[in-house]
Amino acid sequence: MRRIVFVLIAVVALAGVAAYPAQAFGQTDGEAAPIFGVKIPPGYREWRLISVAHEEGNLNDLRAILGNDVAIGASREGKLPFPDGTIIARLAWSYDRLEESSKAFGRPQTFVAGPPKNGVQFMVKDSRKYASTGGWGFAQFDDGKPASEPVQNTCFSCHATVKARDFVFNRYAP
Amino acid sequence: MRRIVFVLIAVVALAGVAAYPAQAFGQTDGEAAPIFGVKIPPGYREWRLISVAHEEGNLNDLRAILGNDVAIGASREGKLPFPDGTIIARLAWSYDRLEESSKAFGRPQTFVAGPPKNGVQFMVKDSRKYASTGGWGFAQFDDGKPASEPVQNTCFSCHATVKARDFVFNRYAP
Repeated sequence: MRRIVFVLIAVVALAGVAAYPAQAFGQTDGEAAPIFGVKIPPGYREWRLISVAHEEGNLNDLRAILGNDVAIGASREGKLPFPDGTIIARLAWSYDRLEESSKAFGRPQTFVAGPPKNGVQFMVKDSRKYASTGGWGFAQFDDGKPASEPVQNTCFSCHATVKARDFVFNRYAP
Repeated sequence: MRRIVFVLIAVVALAGVAAYPAQAFGQTDGEAAPIFGVKIPPGYREWRLISVAHEEGNLNDLRAILGNDVAIGASREGKLPFPDGTIIARLAWSYDRLEESSKAFGRPQTFVAGPPKNGVQFMVKDSRKYASTGGWGFAQFDDGKPASEPVQNTCFSCHATVKARDFVFNRYAP
């Protein structure tokens, strides 16, 4: 048993060596978004969960906030401002009624994530590079392509309303 | 630069060796839940995201579905039934209006995860051990303690409505 565990640990460690360079140190070959020059961070869908939300109105989505290791550490500590190197990802999906649940409960009960919607957004902390926007670079990608410059421009103006929270709306959900 | 990357990789690999035994191979010292004997899986809050949901009615929560590596792999492939070793975690938090967002939009707009609510639930796939309940063991923990036997009994009866999807409501959100 001890030997099997050791072999498993070795495999995990080797998998780490193989997987991390591409995800943690690489730059995507994808197109940089206008204004802040942010690219899609490789492997962001593997990141851990910070929190979840539902947007009403025109957005009408379910969303998840994921963070890279720096973001997760800072979010859990709850210390502001976020350190340089923080990247926060906002994924969103359509807000769909789950029919199986309606049957089980006998009424509308559950709303689940449907297809991706409203793009994927990133906040990248670099206090020097993005000094004029609170240290954050913002980007939105729709189907993997950078959204237009007018769309990117809306990010900071909205996040400026939470300047006291280092421009971040979400809080870590334990 | 090449040398720095190598050192970083080594650190990541060593961190993997140090972190994995406790999280992936350990058993918690916590109390097992009634009926199925499931314990809280160590490190489940580090798992990757499968999907998100909102429950209306008395539950009234925002929730996230996380999965261990087996669950994530199977969910992404979309193949049923889930293999033995799958563990799916359901976290939930209160469904709270985000006041900062209401200010930014000038109307109620965003609902976010507040404090934990409705416990944490797990589905554990072991087709032999749990043969009489579709191969799944179910458990709910409230504030880290197993919920009562009547509560645990409600799990399978509800999930039985989605037998065609191997008793799992959620689908992977890309």
